[in-house]
Amino acid sequence: MDFDLETQDTPFIDRLDEEGKEAIHEASMYIIEELGIQVKHDEAIEYFEEAGATIEDDYLVKADRSLIEEKVEEAPESFTLHARNPENNLEIGGGDTFRAPGYGAPNIRTFEDGRRSSTIEDYEMFMKLAQEEDVINSTGYNVAEPTNVDQEVKHLEMVKRSLEYTDLPVMVSTYGQDRTDPTLEMVGIAVGDRDLSKTYAAGLVNTVPPRTLDKAMTGGLVGLAKEGQAPVVSSFIQAGASGPGTMAGAVALANAENLMGITLTQLINPGNPVVYGVPASNLDMRYGSLSIGSAESALFANVAGTMGRFYGVPSRGGGGLTDSKTVDYQAGFESMLVNGVAELSGVDFILHSAGIIESYSTISPEKFVLDAEALRFLDRFQDGYEINEEMLALDIVESIDPDDHFLGESHTLKYAGKEFLIPEVVDKRSHGDWKGDGEKSAFEMGHDRVQELLDSYSKPELDEETQAELDELYESAKAEVWENA
Amino acid sequence: MDFDLETQDTPFIDRLDEEGKEAIHEASMYIIEELGIQVKHDEAIEYFEEAGATIEDDYLVKADRSLIEEKVEEAPESFTLHARNPENNLEIGGGDTFRAPGYGAPNIRTFEDGRRSSTIEDYEMFMKLAQEEDVINSTGYNVAEPTNVDQEVKHLEMVKRSLEYTDLPVMVSTYGQDRTDPTLEMVGIAVGDRDLSKTYAAGLVNTVPPRTLDKAMTGGLVGLAKEGQAPVVSSFIQAGASGPGTMAGAVALANAENLMGITLTQLINPGNPVVYGVPASNLDMRYGSLSIGSAESALFANVAGTMGRFYGVPSRGGGGLTDSKTVDYQAGFESMLVNGVAELSGVDFILHSAGIIESYSTISPEKFVLDAEALRFLDRFQDGYEINEEMLALDIVESIDPDDHFLGESHTLKYAGKEFLIPEVVDKRSHGDWKGDGEKSAFEMGHDRVQELLDSYSKPELDEETQAELDELYESAKAEVWENA
Repeated sequence: MDFDLETQDTPFIDRLDEEGKEAIHEASMYIIEELGIQVKHDEAIEYFEEAGATIEDDYLVKADRSLIEEKVEEAPESFTLHARNPENNLEIGGGDTFRAPGYGAPNIRTFEDGRRSSTIEDYEMFMKLAQEEDVINSTGYNVAEPTNVDQEVKHLEMVKRSLEYTDLPVMVSTYGQDRTDPTLEMVGIAVGDRDLSKTYAAGLVNTVPPRTLDKAMTGGLVGLAKEGQAPVVSSFIQAGASGPGTMAGAVALANAENLMGITLTQLINPGNPVVYGVPASNLDMRYGSLSIGSAESALFANVAGTMGRFYGVPSRGGGGLTDSKTVDYQAGFESMLVNGVAELSGVDFILHSAGIIESYSTISPEKFVLDAEALRFLDRFQDGYEINEEMLALDIVESIDPDDHFLGESHTLKYAGKEFLIPEVVDKRSHGDWKGDGEKSAFEMGHDRVQELLDSYSKPELDEETQAELDELYESAKAEVWENA
Repeated sequence: MDFDLETQDTPFIDRLDEEGKEAIHEASMYIIEELGIQVKHDEAIEYFEEAGATIEDDYLVKADRSLIEEKVEEAPESFTLHARNPENNLEIGGGDTFRAPGYGAPNIRTFEDGRRSSTIEDYEMFMKLAQEEDVINSTGYNVAEPTNVDQEVKHLEMVKRSLEYTDLPVMVSTYGQDRTDPTLEMVGIAVGDRDLSKTYAAGLVNTVPPRTLDKAMTGGLVGLAKEGQAPVVSSFIQAGASGPGTMAGAVALANAENLMGITLTQLINPGNPVVYGVPASNLDMRYGSLSIGSAESALFANVAGTMGRFYGVPSRGGGGLTDSKTVDYQAGFESMLVNGVAELSGVDFILHSAGIIESYSTISPEKFVLDAEALRFLDRFQDGYEINEEMLALDIVESIDPDDHFLGESHTLKYAGKEFLIPEVVDKRSHGDWKGDGEKSAFEMGHDRVQELLDSYSKPELDEETQAELDELYESAKAEVWENA
């Protein structure tokens, strides 16, 4: 058999056909042209005004579709996100999937201690785990939102640790340009390129639906775009609350808000890297609670991939999302659904890849390593397999009698360990072995894994001079905050 | 906005392109033509012999590809699987997805009692649960393999209960024609069509890899095909043990075994319904243990959908499969991965949709209702959404100020409850409410759900005459077993 084939890549699953995409685009154009989007940032308003948009009271911007379409067209289809270790660079929109830990959780839940407020020490732990888990390839930011440091300088505390504890691509603060700028400066020092001549950082720019880009995060966007860094514009719609109680309505609104943010990025710096994000989800109407581990959350992640491709902009959506309060079956299936759909939808940038529970409110280190395990399963599925003479193994099939087996065969020994993924965390043993080992749940196995990774972690040191510069900037930036306080 | 659109169906995810499918087919043809497949059943051998195949020692059948290709071509692309309640009929290969509980688990694990051997009372419980969970639409068979009834008549005990406790499409015993025939006779009585003029039953016909159709299940296939009932031919390869330690090798072998079984079905009864099954999985080489909740298991499920379509035969694969020993995060993510990939691969017939843990060895009622919940999420994803003026809700977006929200809007109240799935089992409340309610894990919530379903269950009674006939047949069939014992 003279084949030399591989499985094809999994085709993207697009739920919107051409008509569907056009319909969403038209509806969004109506929102931007006729209803307008608030952009609560003076400098941003100036960019829109200069470009010919109409500015009404309360920062309401109405822009012609020609402006939006032209500017979105200018946004690059892909960009390189550089790390201080170039081996960790990522091609966003070019085939790599950006995967960061969860983002913004003020609480942490661990197997041993239950739930409590997050600390800066927790942040350090997650940086170590992100560095160690191969499947996680960025620090993210605000992973465990530290409650035991001064809230005015927590951005400095976190980004400094992201840069010190890992050599991955990082994200910076976007909560106002006064936080974006010094955190970007830190990045410039750590990567040895103070002018930021390349794109080293991404930053989350959430819209505030309905129809608002607020002052703080728009400031973050401005700060990033001026430095050639990558805003991840993300319409954070909670459908039924901050958006309509229908999928189509929420999608059209999210799309409109995103296009405004992307347009602004291009007005500031034509060709600037930018990401199109749909981290939308729905409200559970019974409780008025946010539901992120939902079928609808998966549908929104699918929109991200589909509409990102439609506009030729890298996309963000999905993640290991769940509304479970702990690390249980619910956490497992909901996270796999949303991470899986994002992956199969061709989403490029996944912010909450691992760790989140409780509708973004809590992060768990055990959930982090378990989500990473699930992502390895997804990656193995995506890798597919080769179809050739050696892999078809017809000579081996011929050599094995129908009543015999392949267990001891050298072909089996040679390939099975490569062809079949060997899990790192979850249990694949017999019931007896599992029972003899204390009947551990996955949550407890995750606990063991966390310890292993922390034990094996080694710090990717910065050279002395760089460390000193970073320390110096950190001190001066803190001092500046106090002066202005 | 004058749109009247819907999201398109999720395109099937095929990992094998045309060349890949042809390569697998060619390799399988080589196995059938040159190496042969054992068919350890005298009558089956006669069918092959009459059709011109070569029979060698030890029931080894070598058939020309022309025979195989012609017969597989004759197998129907779809068929109706009838239930005693016609509302529960399923179009297999025609858009419905057959979903049965787990199959063949000799153990049961419950939240309250842990793990023990399965009983006939457990079987009854699963029949009630299958009847109550809308997302499960068949009884399956051998769901909890009862260890407290006489093993010689357990097939009669189970199928009788499938027919009495539910009005769903059923499956019958395939462990020898002497078990298939009386269980089919029971079905004929229950559906009021003793001649079985339609297809009322499916039966699992596992091959015994490598390259063997054994006596017992081939007998089951013969019994089913003679009565126009549906064999689910399934190459049960454990790659690395009963098949090569490579994906391509295992797929080619599984495909060859399936095509032999499908050909036999068509030789017995041209046009007979038949299903193409790839329930293959891999061995974890570290422990020599079967790994069903794996990425490779998902790849095999994908093969089922792809190759089933290639041959124009309904496909079987996947399920809520896990190697976890309990109902935890591992059980959740592995089951969602394999059920999800099967769904997105267009698999028609899913035998182990809900309940299985521990690599098929154990079934859990709590896992059953949780897998059903996960399937509702998948179905909601697959349902997509409408894109039209009412759903785009631009007038509502216009009426809501940027600083306001959609919560109390009549449009929201009207649609959100329909548009966003309301989960039945898992927790979507605030952390406080969950904590106040005892910090239940999904396993425990599943326990509550099981009780609810058992409480709400009502038996779909058979009329008196039918019940009497069924009782009579059951007694006579049992007596016959004792006579022959």
